[in-house]
Amino acid sequence: MTDRAAWQRLDADDPLRAFRERFELPDGVIYLDGNSLGALPRATPGRVAALLHEAWGRDLITSWNKHGWIDLPTRVGDKIARLIGAAPSEVAVADSTSVNLFKLLSGALDLAPGRRVVLSDRGNFPTDLYIAQGLVGLRGGGLALEVVDEARVAAAIDATTAVVMLTHVNYRSGRMHDLAALTAAAHRAGALMLWDLSHSAGAMPIDLNAAGADFAVGCGYKYLNGGPGAPAFLFIAARHQAGIRPPLSGWMGHVAPFAFDHDYRPAAGIARNLCGTPAILSLVALESGVDLMLEADLAAVRAKSRALGERFWARVTERCPGRFALASPADPAARGSQLCLSHPEGYAIVQALIARGVIPDFRAPDILRFGFAPLYTRYVDIWDAVEQLADIMATRAWDAPQFHTRAKVT
Amino acid sequence: MTDRAAWQRLDADDPLRAFRERFELPDGVIYLDGNSLGALPRATPGRVAALLHEAWGRDLITSWNKHGWIDLPTRVGDKIARLIGAAPSEVAVADSTSVNLFKLLSGALDLAPGRRVVLSDRGNFPTDLYIAQGLVGLRGGGLALEVVDEARVAAAIDATTAVVMLTHVNYRSGRMHDLAALTAAAHRAGALMLWDLSHSAGAMPIDLNAAGADFAVGCGYKYLNGGPGAPAFLFIAARHQAGIRPPLSGWMGHVAPFAFDHDYRPAAGIARNLCGTPAILSLVALESGVDLMLEADLAAVRAKSRALGERFWARVTERCPGRFALASPADPAARGSQLCLSHPEGYAIVQALIARGVIPDFRAPDILRFGFAPLYTRYVDIWDAVEQLADIMATRAWDAPQFHTRAKVT
Repeated sequence: MTDRAAWQRLDADDPLRAFRERFELPDGVIYLDGNSLGALPRATPGRVAALLHEAWGRDLITSWNKHGWIDLPTRVGDKIARLIGAAPSEVAVADSTSVNLFKLLSGALDLAPGRRVVLSDRGNFPTDLYIAQGLVGLRGGGLALEVVDEARVAAAIDATTAVVMLTHVNYRSGRMHDLAALTAAAHRAGALMLWDLSHSAGAMPIDLNAAGADFAVGCGYKYLNGGPGAPAFLFIAARHQAGIRPPLSGWMGHVAPFAFDHDYRPAAGIARNLCGTPAILSLVALESGVDLMLEADLAAVRAKSRALGERFWARVTERCPGRFALASPADPAARGSQLCLSHPEGYAIVQALIARGVIPDFRAPDILRFGFAPLYTRYVDIWDAVEQLADIMATRAWDAPQFHTRAKVT
Repeated sequence: MTDRAAWQRLDADDPLRAFRERFELPDGVIYLDGNSLGALPRATPGRVAALLHEAWGRDLITSWNKHGWIDLPTRVGDKIARLIGAAPSEVAVADSTSVNLFKLLSGALDLAPGRRVVLSDRGNFPTDLYIAQGLVGLRGGGLALEVVDEARVAAAIDATTAVVMLTHVNYRSGRMHDLAALTAAAHRAGALMLWDLSHSAGAMPIDLNAAGADFAVGCGYKYLNGGPGAPAFLFIAARHQAGIRPPLSGWMGHVAPFAFDHDYRPAAGIARNLCGTPAILSLVALESGVDLMLEADLAAVRAKSRALGERFWARVTERCPGRFALASPADPAARGSQLCLSHPEGYAIVQALIARGVIPDFRAPDILRFGFAPLYTRYVDIWDAVEQLADIMATRAWDAPQFHTRAKVT
């Protein structure tokens, strides 16, 4: 156990080690799926309870003013802005990532008259592609979604490209696009750049404004630990905000929602991109997760994330030689905060791991995805997870009937 | 105090009297704004806490299957279906009312090729009109929103009308449209009918299928007591579901979300109208409110609601003669579960009432809106509220500087 003890010392020396105690984590579980659903911050239940009893229950409708509910979408947006290199007035929290993508893609098409292509990569998260398909179908006029292999995106941007829509870190492989380089490539061709930060916000330093990015969306329930289905965020560079005509022109984006005007007139800033009444319970839980993330040094988060990934792969090659192909880039600098293995029996192997309290996730058809959330994933968790994986492979423990039964959500 | 005692006896005889104890209500407050934000059911904090600790915190990502999160939008939809005369597979919970309106209006336009008009009434809730404006602008092709006075809607439906979009109970006046008659009028002209039930679902029996309605949306945070910004619902008659091409084509509406297909293929039934990942915290709170509402007899709810409104207006005319104009229909059968007064100093009068613990709300420019939530509003609350109102008017207590300062949300 000398080696495991050495990994425990890494935890003892970890500058982020105190964060783990800020989460409520189940005993006996090694959770390596924070890239799908982040863990529960200990502060969150108390904040939600206060919202329920002291705001909703006691102050009722007056809470919109008294407890600042009306400002929550921009207040939490301002906080997220600090995590992604945006200015405070450039981010709002609203709706889901999918709905926000629809808004921003539509806005980008408004700003690029005469250009007909939304360009993306074939491996982008499916909902991003679906939303783009739906939007171009709805708007008509020859608009089209075009997808190319991820390595070919830069070369495919041309004078027909209205907007390049990419996910910064690929959900399946963990491959990270070069945010600054691709933004520059889009701009050189006169196109706009939209980033989906769902798999990177909160996992690493991101600087949208340094890169000159035009638009971004992202998810609240992964590395931001906002809770299941937490509202999503949207970023629009200040220079574009006045030119956006919101396609989902709801009352919360009106310049004066409580004037009850008959005609839609968009609010001046980022707020015009709000639509309906925000889901306050979910927003308060998200704010709790974001507040915790703001205490962390994102450079330290990234450094630990890289180390966890490198050590994970090193241990897999040592303990399960030849068993798995690496489905993530070999260069750690080109990966997000996850490491993916492929194996034809990936589904059953993941189920066998879950039965032993190690929770990665599976992505069809054959990907075992291990996510590292540096605020609560320990080095020793990596050690222990790979020990379980090695035992499952050595004993073929995955080849039991119950591990082959598919669940609704995988 | 003889009269007040008589009103207390009405409460003692109220078949719904036991429901009030099921809500957490602040002491010393008479809450007459349940039509804007319903009160907190006592069961809700426990259910939310269980969600936080036992699902999110303990079972983490596995909760999507283990705690049935993935089915919540349709499970809660099935429950709401029972409140609005829909079949179980005709309702889903998703997004906000505004976003759902966008989806259904777009679906209606798909089903009515060659017809270019979305028809509504001028006094419809503004976000409904804004959303329609945004959608017709986005789709182009000569589509238009047309609004007429509410009394002229039936006459204005013609061969150009694709869809008639009305709110069942007007947010400002409480006037209730005849749901069955207007649906029939739309159908006679070959148009589709979309109802916004935000101000009626949970306040009275509604039978969408008996009326043959095509589409409906509604709000979770008013009479359904789902909490601030609770997710909204959408109804699509079974006969139309397969013809809907969702404009917000997100992964949760895909036939196989976890297959991660590259192309969008809509789910078979109502589920295709889901878009992004649902806000689970807010959905669980909504389910708690809906479960409580399902225990109530909606005919009894409606009978009490009418009685509260009639008695409120009778007391106002008695105690404040000539002070207020009735801004709701004089016929109680034509009103929803609210009663509106108009007065040039309406804003300040509402603030003075709030300062005394009586909470109605104000709608610009001059409407005092009093909502009755029969599950927790008592007859004696009406008595006491009008006593306060009479005193405020008699003493001009509203004419103090602090009551003239406008809040962000009114």
